[in-house]
Amino acid sequence: MKRYGVVMAGGGGTRFWPLSRAERPKQLLNLSGKDLMVNETLERLTGCMERDDLFIVTNVTQAPLMAEETEGRMQKDHILAEPAARNTSACIGYAAMEIVKKYGDGIMVIVPSDHFIKDTKGFSDTIDAAIKAAEETDALITIGIEPTYPATGYGYIRAEEESEKEIAGGHGKKSHKVAEFVEKPALDVAKEYVAAGNYYWNSGMFVWKASTILSYMEKLLPDVYACLDKIGNALGTDKEQQILDEVYPTIPKISIDYGIMERADNILVIPSSFGWNDIGSLDMLSLMKEADESGNASYGETLLLDTKDSIVYGTDKLIATIGLKDMIVVQAKDAILICPKDRAQEVKDVVETLKAEGRDSYL
Amino acid sequence: MKRYGVVMAGGGGTRFWPLSRAERPKQLLNLSGKDLMVNETLERLTGCMERDDLFIVTNVTQAPLMAEETEGRMQKDHILAEPAARNTSACIGYAAMEIVKKYGDGIMVIVPSDHFIKDTKGFSDTIDAAIKAAEETDALITIGIEPTYPATGYGYIRAEEESEKEIAGGHGKKSHKVAEFVEKPALDVAKEYVAAGNYYWNSGMFVWKASTILSYMEKLLPDVYACLDKIGNALGTDKEQQILDEVYPTIPKISIDYGIMERADNILVIPSSFGWNDIGSLDMLSLMKEADESGNASYGETLLLDTKDSIVYGTDKLIATIGLKDMIVVQAKDAILICPKDRAQEVKDVVETLKAEGRDSYL
Repeated sequence: MKRYGVVMAGGGGTRFWPLSRAERPKQLLNLSGKDLMVNETLERLTGCMERDDLFIVTNVTQAPLMAEETEGRMQKDHILAEPAARNTSACIGYAAMEIVKKYGDGIMVIVPSDHFIKDTKGFSDTIDAAIKAAEETDALITIGIEPTYPATGYGYIRAEEESEKEIAGGHGKKSHKVAEFVEKPALDVAKEYVAAGNYYWNSGMFVWKASTILSYMEKLLPDVYACLDKIGNALGTDKEQQILDEVYPTIPKISIDYGIMERADNILVIPSSFGWNDIGSLDMLSLMKEADESGNASYGETLLLDTKDSIVYGTDKLIATIGLKDMIVVQAKDAILICPKDRAQEVKDVVETLKAEGRDSYL
Repeated sequence: MKRYGVVMAGGGGTRFWPLSRAERPKQLLNLSGKDLMVNETLERLTGCMERDDLFIVTNVTQAPLMAEETEGRMQKDHILAEPAARNTSACIGYAAMEIVKKYGDGIMVIVPSDHFIKDTKGFSDTIDAAIKAAEETDALITIGIEPTYPATGYGYIRAEEESEKEIAGGHGKKSHKVAEFVEKPALDVAKEYVAAGNYYWNSGMFVWKASTILSYMEKLLPDVYACLDKIGNALGTDKEQQILDEVYPTIPKISIDYGIMERADNILVIPSSFGWNDIGSLDMLSLMKEADESGNASYGETLLLDTKDSIVYGTDKLIATIGLKDMIVVQAKDAILICPKDRAQEVKDVVETLKAEGRDSYL
């Protein structure tokens, strides 16, 4: 069965301010020092499918810049522009409908556009195995990440250990039935999960047949499906854009996790470990770039005197530091942020304050 | 006797990087949030003399910008441009010769262009008293600052306590004979000085007759005087600039402290306290600008979250901080500096490193 990559790239996000801005969110940033996150995501997927079968779902505002930045990486008409943000069920359902109506059925590999993955080969093997399992079983497959520490910022997936099954031709990967999805835990609970050994981080990556997810939506999310069906009937006709613009904004907002994953019956998780991180805050940058001998991850022009374990990101200014430790310094365009690494979560407070104070040019 | 203000403004200095640059040294910065240091110095002097009697001695490179920035504050042709930097004896001797040859004799009030003075009235009263003492006694008069802490960064003046004498019409100010000038002390020695009560910081401000300092130079620095005499003879003639350009660069380099003050016999100090600081490093900025309720001195556009006792200076960028304490953040033009307040002295290391690495555009 044909394989399609679906990159979810509609996010706004404020946690990477001042790097990320309203018009250039995290997926359009170069955080590795090599390429934009969305482009690295696309390239990663070419390890297990054809470039011409890659899709991006984004919003109408971001679509033009997205098309420009991904030039030559994928087909331009595979950038699906949502007329409104209606959460992940709508986003995934729209892509599934597009695939079914325009290309026949196929396996969808759905990944966020702004996550970091260190081991590209490990990722490809896992996705390849997930595709094989999806072809064989008609299951909804989710990629679970073996936790390396008791993270409180991720949801967890509890696997049924006794259901372990090796995937035929799947690079030795195994699938487990999913017992339950659990919310972001408190630290002590997270520690129990890690100790238990059958809990995995919910990476937000899914693999399934387009027809399968649409069937689940028809059954579990009939209101969402009704809208998607109208859109699906218009696809390829001269009313495609008009119907999309009319119907899409009316799709009920519900996440795929809440709407489908927590309620469907045939769900498998494939435990994996390929150096995944959702890079949810600026302090995570130190994972993405090789540190110098003092533990600093630096970007752009810098001069670091007696500075250790810090992140220093300059865009078009020289940043000179003396005597910093575990700090973040980021300059982008017209703004500069300085905070300790362990307060990177509070960057959103800066953005909220700017918003509240009407200093919109900095958003 | 007529009073003349002589502002010494030839310094380069690297301790205010990235605010101060090769083409715009500290005296041409607005550090108070109100005006340039050199302009504040000029305005302060108008408290005890005529605006038309103010002089600036600077170097040829800085002179055009100096003329532009002091527009309307003083007479343009009172900006004396040194063809080369030959230390303070040359600088002061040149100004003295100019005053004697072009305007007859007069009292010179010599002040650095880049110091902070909090109490303008206190300053005026002290200078006024010093002028009166100079008129009366033919002495070389230096302004001593009553130490408020055991500073190790300043030279000290030891006064002969028993020589205390009230200055007639001098706002109650007293003069003392100077016993000796002492170098920047170690901390324990500085503590002894402060405890002793008859030691004062050497502010580098002097008051004397132009004819008196020239006599001292003729006697104590004959090589310097010989050059000054040649220049003096050419002043007002059509060879003025030619002789200046030829002779000035050959004047022996010697400071007024070492060449005259430590060797002359008739020296008085006037103890004073008008909130003086030489603003020798970026951490001193907190003295110059009223702090907010969290103890921060901020300049330009800032957003300070949980930030205390810090200096945040933005020129044309927004600076946002979270969780800083006792830090310095400075953005100017194409460069940003971040360091703890207590390491402000090391800013010169940044400049030296930039120089050594040939990153000249940042100097």
